[in-house]
Amino acid sequence: MITLDDVRTAADRIKGYVRRTPLMDASLAQRSPLPDGASLLLKLESLQVTGSFKARGAINQLLSLPPDAVARGIVTASGGNHGIAVARAAYVAGVPSTVFLPENAALAKQEKLKSWGATIHLIGRYWDEAHEAAMAFAEGSGLPYFHPFASPAIVAGQGTVALEILEQAPDIDLFLIAIGGGGLIAGMSTVLRALHPNARIIGIEPVGSPTLYASLEQGSVVKLDAVTTTVPTMACARTDPGIFDIVRKNVDDVILLEDAAMFDAARWLWFEFGLAADASGAAAAAALLSGQISVAPGTRICALVCGAGLDAFA
Amino acid sequence: MITLDDVRTAADRIKGYVRRTPLMDASLAQRSPLPDGASLLLKLESLQVTGSFKARGAINQLLSLPPDAVARGIVTASGGNHGIAVARAAYVAGVPSTVFLPENAALAKQEKLKSWGATIHLIGRYWDEAHEAAMAFAEGSGLPYFHPFASPAIVAGQGTVALEILEQAPDIDLFLIAIGGGGLIAGMSTVLRALHPNARIIGIEPVGSPTLYASLEQGSVVKLDAVTTTVPTMACARTDPGIFDIVRKNVDDVILLEDAAMFDAARWLWFEFGLAADASGAAAAAALLSGQISVAPGTRICALVCGAGLDAFA
Repeated sequence: MITLDDVRTAADRIKGYVRRTPLMDASLAQRSPLPDGASLLLKLESLQVTGSFKARGAINQLLSLPPDAVARGIVTASGGNHGIAVARAAYVAGVPSTVFLPENAALAKQEKLKSWGATIHLIGRYWDEAHEAAMAFAEGSGLPYFHPFASPAIVAGQGTVALEILEQAPDIDLFLIAIGGGGLIAGMSTVLRALHPNARIIGIEPVGSPTLYASLEQGSVVKLDAVTTTVPTMACARTDPGIFDIVRKNVDDVILLEDAAMFDAARWLWFEFGLAADASGAAAAAALLSGQISVAPGTRICALVCGAGLDAFA
Repeated sequence: MITLDDVRTAADRIKGYVRRTPLMDASLAQRSPLPDGASLLLKLESLQVTGSFKARGAINQLLSLPPDAVARGIVTASGGNHGIAVARAAYVAGVPSTVFLPENAALAKQEKLKSWGATIHLIGRYWDEAHEAAMAFAEGSGLPYFHPFASPAIVAGQGTVALEILEQAPDIDLFLIAIGGGGLIAGMSTVLRALHPNARIIGIEPVGSPTLYASLEQGSVVKLDAVTTTVPTMACARTDPGIFDIVRKNVDDVILLEDAAMFDAARWLWFEFGLAADASGAAAAAALLSGQISVAPGTRICALVCGAGLDAFA
């Protein structure tokens, strides 16, 4: 689907459109999930333009297209964060954006979407249903559809997070990465396997949306019968075959977490670090706090705080 | 009151107890308050242990005292952030803390205080009234009182923020610093005038608590007749004479902002940077957004995001 070079090209292309986010040492927590000598770095993509790493992929997709192709506007379907990123890419290009969201998308995210000038449609119980409506709209209108993960330009854009982390801290042993459709972990793991092959890479999905987990179990892409997570940004019934191939090849493990564990981790990030993360943004920290991952003493861990949100404090 | 050496000693003393917080380039905002070529760096003390820079002063005060002096517990009065910092210092020392808060202290901060094990008393309309009650309690109980600003160890601790910023970015032209009682700006300006004498330093107070502003106008410390700001962490009727002397000598200007401008800036920090700042944490950004400060093209500005909070999103 993509190569390291695609990610490097994306990094050059999107420079000046996205922020280099801090990688913060997460020591000094009152409640630490780490064994002796282990350390945790938080990659604060919640501080990225638009509030998540999704800004990277969306602007890379936009800049990969000829201006003519987007002149009449762009369309997407999103659990929230990708939608904001697409709306902002459209804002940068000076074209309209139309964003389809599942009905449980966070209000704070709907407000951000409006501030970037997007037209919003709330439809469906989770992402796949909003996606179908958005696809129909894109076909009917002839406008380009910005898929949140089944697009090489999106995946390459998300992969730039890993390039940046390796510049900031070249010696990380374990990466914890939340999965919605899988675009982020596909992009990042492509970089990591090429440049930092011995790192352990663990993906995190909700118990109520085990898309990659179930696909890896079966050995091929499955469509989940039911998506029951309450976390809209991690709800996805079916990943893309290209994403699946990358994850199968690159990712050591995919673990499943209850939604409550992610909300608990969001409150932990707030209490310990003053960070307002959404549930998916807290998923990587939740993987540690839940004790589901065995961490050897001395391990250097990087947890992505992939998106901002206020849901845990409502 | 303090010297550069006191701050350096404090920095050595508190190392390992506080976090080196990120200094983030705040470019790429949709709504930018900056003229051509000017740049803004945000010092993210909202990500500090306890959610504000106050962790620095409180732990420095604690470590400056003999263990015997704090063994039975410590007492303070606070608009919120200093109280959390003192409660955490007590937690580190394994001793009890008692924190007096004005009645309008933020609920999210009361929760953090409880998580650090503090006993809370809500009393008074603003800080000075909680302070009186706390002083009486400290006298009656014989426990040490941790004053939020009229203490050299506190001021020296807060000054370490400036040492850290100068290491991260030695070439800043303008520092924007919120004022409650004045401890932070006193500590920071002591460092800046010694090491970076040409930088412009501007303090920010609420229109409804112009403590330093009024004292500078009069040429001596005044006690305000009324404190009407709704921002508990910036409500202070009377500063300390030592603080006043430092501010008079070091600070170029103190400007006044409406509370609403600070809440607006908190929403701006959330929209643009995914940061959940309290009103005082947003005050420095508000000074820029309000247009009250004239900024020449090319100016390099550092705005302190001094504390985390959820008030602007309630």
